[in-house]
Amino acid sequence: MTQQSNHVSEIVLTLSCDDKPGIVAAVANLFALQGFNIRESSQFEDVHSKRFFMRTVFEASEGAKPLGDIKSAFKAVAERYDMQWSLCDVHRRARIVIAVSKWGHCLNNLLNSWKRGSLPVDIVAVVSNHEDMRELVEWYDVPYHYMPVSPDNKAEQEAQILELIDDQDVDLLVLARYMQILSSNMTDALKGRAINIHHSFLPGFKGAKPYHQAYARGVKLIGATAHFVTEDLDEGPIIEQDVERVSHINEPEELVEIGRDIESRVLGRAVRWFAQQRILPNGNKTVVFSR
Amino acid sequence: MTQQSNHVSEIVLTLSCDDKPGIVAAVANLFALQGFNIRESSQFEDVHSKRFFMRTVFEASEGAKPLGDIKSAFKAVAERYDMQWSLCDVHRRARIVIAVSKWGHCLNNLLNSWKRGSLPVDIVAVVSNHEDMRELVEWYDVPYHYMPVSPDNKAEQEAQILELIDDQDVDLLVLARYMQILSSNMTDALKGRAINIHHSFLPGFKGAKPYHQAYARGVKLIGATAHFVTEDLDEGPIIEQDVERVSHINEPEELVEIGRDIESRVLGRAVRWFAQQRILPNGNKTVVFSR
Amino acid sequence: MTQQSNHVSEIVLTLSCDDKPGIVAAVANLFALQGFNIRESSQFEDVHSKRFFMRTVFEASEGAKPLGDIKSAFKAVAERYDMQWSLCDVHRRARIVIAVSKWGHCLNNLLNSWKRGSLPVDIVAVVSNHEDMRELVEWYDVPYHYMPVSPDNKAEQEAQILELIDDQDVDLLVLARYMQILSSNMTDALKGRAINIHHSFLPGFKGAKPYHQAYARGVKLIGATAHFVTEDLDEGPIIEQDVERVSHINEPEELVEIGRDIESRVLGRAVRWFAQQRILPNGNKTVVFSR
Amino acid sequence: MTQQSNHVSEIVLTLSCDDKPGIVAAVANLFALQGFNIRESSQFEDVHSKRFFMRTVFEASEGAKPLGDIKSAFKAVAERYDMQWSLCDVHRRARIVIAVSKWGHCLNNLLNSWKRGSLPVDIVAVVSNHEDMRELVEWYDVPYHYMPVSPDNKAEQEAQILELIDDQDVDLLVLARYMQILSSNMTDALKGRAINIHHSFLPGFKGAKPYHQAYARGVKLIGATAHFVTEDLDEGPIIEQDVERVSHINEPEELVEIGRDIESRVLGRAVRWFAQQRILPNGNKTVVFSR
Repeated sequence: MTQQSNHVSEIVLTLSCDDKPGIVAAVANLFALQGFNIRESSQFEDVHSKRFFMRTVFEASEGAKPLGDIKSAFKAVAERYDMQWSLCDVHRRARIVIAVSKWGHCLNNLLNSWKRGSLPVDIVAVVSNHEDMRELVEWYDVPYHYMPVSPDNKAEQEAQILELIDDQDVDLLVLARYMQILSSNMTDALKGRAINIHHSFLPGFKGAKPYHQAYARGVKLIGATAHFVTEDLDEGPIIEQDVERVSHINEPEELVEIGRDIESRVLGRAVRWFAQQRILPNGNKTVVFSR
Repeated sequence: MTQQSNHVSEIVLTLSCDDKPGIVAAVANLFALQGFNIRESSQFEDVHSKRFFMRTVFEASEGAKPLGDIKSAFKAVAERYDMQWSLCDVHRRARIVIAVSKWGHCLNNLLNSWKRGSLPVDIVAVVSNHEDMRELVEWYDVPYHYMPVSPDNKAEQEAQILELIDDQDVDLLVLARYMQILSSNMTDALKGRAINIHHSFLPGFKGAKPYHQAYARGVKLIGATAHFVTEDLDEGPIIEQDVERVSHINEPEELVEIGRDIESRVLGRAVRWFAQQRILPNGNKTVVFSR
Repeated sequence: MTQQSNHVSEIVLTLSCDDKPGIVAAVANLFALQGFNIRESSQFEDVHSKRFFMRTVFEASEGAKPLGDIKSAFKAVAERYDMQWSLCDVHRRARIVIAVSKWGHCLNNLLNSWKRGSLPVDIVAVVSNHEDMRELVEWYDVPYHYMPVSPDNKAEQEAQILELIDDQDVDLLVLARYMQILSSNMTDALKGRAINIHHSFLPGFKGAKPYHQAYARGVKLIGATAHFVTEDLDEGPIIEQDVERVSHINEPEELVEIGRDIESRVLGRAVRWFAQQRILPNGNKTVVFSR
Repeated sequence: MTQQSNHVSEIVLTLSCDDKPGIVAAVANLFALQGFNIRESSQFEDVHSKRFFMRTVFEASEGAKPLGDIKSAFKAVAERYDMQWSLCDVHRRARIVIAVSKWGHCLNNLLNSWKRGSLPVDIVAVVSNHEDMRELVEWYDVPYHYMPVSPDNKAEQEAQILELIDDQDVDLLVLARYMQILSSNMTDALKGRAINIHHSFLPGFKGAKPYHQAYARGVKLIGATAHFVTEDLDEGPIIEQDVERVSHINEPEELVEIGRDIESRVLGRAVRWFAQQRILPNGNKTVVFSR
């Protein structure tokens, strides 16, 4: 990579830290002095946990500068406030791997959005415990890794996925209706870096066959939930949810069908917001600076 | 009541029975022969339980007729198919009692809709274990019954409410944020005749303080659920649900506030649909012929 | 086609006619006598136009019968009431042609739904005035007809499309973001058989660049509308609409992106409902027996 | 008012100005030096108009201070950037007057929210060209001003309303289904200080009887729009919109009824956001820092 390529003119900063006086002033001053102007900024203080969250997009007012220099300059402020932070080029594309089983609707939606240029990510690979989606994925010129799972090889298969993620510098694993439960080893290794789509409006209908549960309970709306993956199945921090109206006439199979549209768009939004650095973890919840 | 007042020109029939050939033909023929024409009709077969549901509005094509005569004529058909059925004047207004504790938003919405003529019911009385809503209710010229509850007098207080319901020929008890759990005696006595509004999107967040539960879980939509009251708290057949989008910035108190709008309109719809005979019970679910 | 293949055990009837006494009874009787039982039925009377609409699914109670025989038997009733009607095998798949220009999101959604078996149609062909979507369509093994349009050859190109529709017995032309305005010749020929997706919540923002119009007006929700195509652009009978919340932060390009999800699902529903014979035209409006 | 009462410990700043480097840093620094810490802040730059918008809530970190002193201190910054700005006590309640004609659903919702303490405003008075709502309003102990309108006295009646607004230091006039069109004199005088609820999803169905227009057009969703009042009827900056699903079965009267719920909640949100200083005008649009 050449020196030039490290010069940035638009950068996005995300940070969280315990709330103290002067954070915004310190951040704004520092970047103003570095020649960067705020284009868009959101802040939030969790008044219960006294934690402060911020996402700011800066643009250079005096020409592009080396990203490394800005990071160095910011380090003093970040350390003073004991911040968790990230600073990167707005145009850097998040690198994602998508895991899928036999159902391809979420995968298809991500691939199609990506191909038409509306999902600002690099899709590094698709991994699956089935071969069903190979053809579709390869049509999009994305590598397809068939990694079958059995009770015997589960640890090994997970290790393979983690290796791929490490080797390829992957930012996010997207479980696009991947029907395997990850081990706690895996969820620990990917904390804050794995998003799952669950096909219900959590916390209702956790676990298997949520649309059949929804049918049995007779609910009048069904939904889907994108959340970070944690050790506790379907209990991770929620990123996005949406619902559609249904009625007594809808058989479980129709709920499944209606649900596919909801799952696809909810997961699509979560991945886009992750790529845009709009999602900040806050304990078992999320701060999402969107809309 | 004079003879004339029993003459009806518009009637609504609701029925459910095990599905067998010829039901619709038999019903349509019978009423055609009685001089009544179908204006609006909905049918539904639950293909799992093999149960058939129907709601039909008829209008007289040869002038009004005595309701008793039509009922007698229909009885033969109803018995042949072992129907659960109801037949009544479209213009008969359902008689309701509203139970409330200290929060008046759902009550206020029902009273205001009713006063402007858009809720086709007679509000017979409001009962409450608090005095807070007396003034509002009396302004609407509705009798207010203060019936305080304690562990000691609970059975007695429920008996009072049931007596009121029996004496006044009440069709429906509406629990408009009535914060008392009814005994199983009471729920048995009012099966299919008591509607509660629960301030969450069931089955998520059953029990107490659902908005605080929703805040703690970090959901991105909150909701409300109108359901028939059964012995199992928050487990009765769902009639209607709705949701609103919220975000990380919303404190529990704001969720409560946003939720009030949702509760009010969800309960309002449920009461209207009950009054219009649009809700048919189907085991632990409902068939709602609305929209 | 063999005799056997004309035997049907599940049929769907749709009809509309001026409202008169006895229609439902006559229909129900006729089919009961033919050995068919009602499984699902919806009726509606437009009290302003005095027009009656009905959609009924019947199932054979005595084994499959020839469709032709049932049609013959029904003809007497249909003529008595001067009905517009259709009767066909529930399992018959609607034959559709999709027209597309350069934007493939609606097309992709239809193709993917269809391939996974959830859209009960036969996609006979895709026609386009551009080559952009050829690869995608051919991957799905659907014939792709490139038919460029210029002011000079417009009539000719439309004639080609109509010929394809006639030759292939096509039930529906789906304009999936096809950016050409059809001539009145074409819209007349395809009355009730062509569905367009317009990328706004009609009647707001007719015409070109509706998302940019929406941005300029500062609306807080954007939407999409599926409607039958008529001579008057964006004025045809509306079949389905949906919206999403947006805010001041959304640039026109983001509205376009958010809108793609809305367009895809709204058009998907309209095509499914057409295929299931749930849409009945009612002057410049539609009766949609869905949900 | 005592000196003490001018001391503030929580203040809300709103501002807009042409975008230039250093705004946020200057604001944050100024308030940090005055002993105020940011609790919540939102910024937005309109990249087309190059206009910058900001709303920040500060809390005192060293005890309450006189509001006048803080304003004086801020003036230098405000002038340097040529800001339009407002700074006030978070706990100051906006003073509103509600105008109403014969339909009381929006009024009733505002009064009830206000009485239960969930709408942080002072309702100074209700004005009306009819007597219908007097009783309701007086029950809430709010002054009711009957000001009938005729073609002859329109100017005079508007002058009366304006006088009331001036005399009583009113921040906002809420047109809660007030069926009179304001003169351009009146709209000029109240620029940015009058909110109307229009009973359609603008820009669809401007003008009279929008639900009947919606019925005639056969839309599948109906809505309501809260907007600032301007000389051009139904063309003012949109603050909030919402919709509900309807279908072919809904008569115009039912659309009116369903619409009342939408109107009430949309207007309720707009008034709350105004009271919380969340709405900043941006030409013919609004920046709303909500959710």
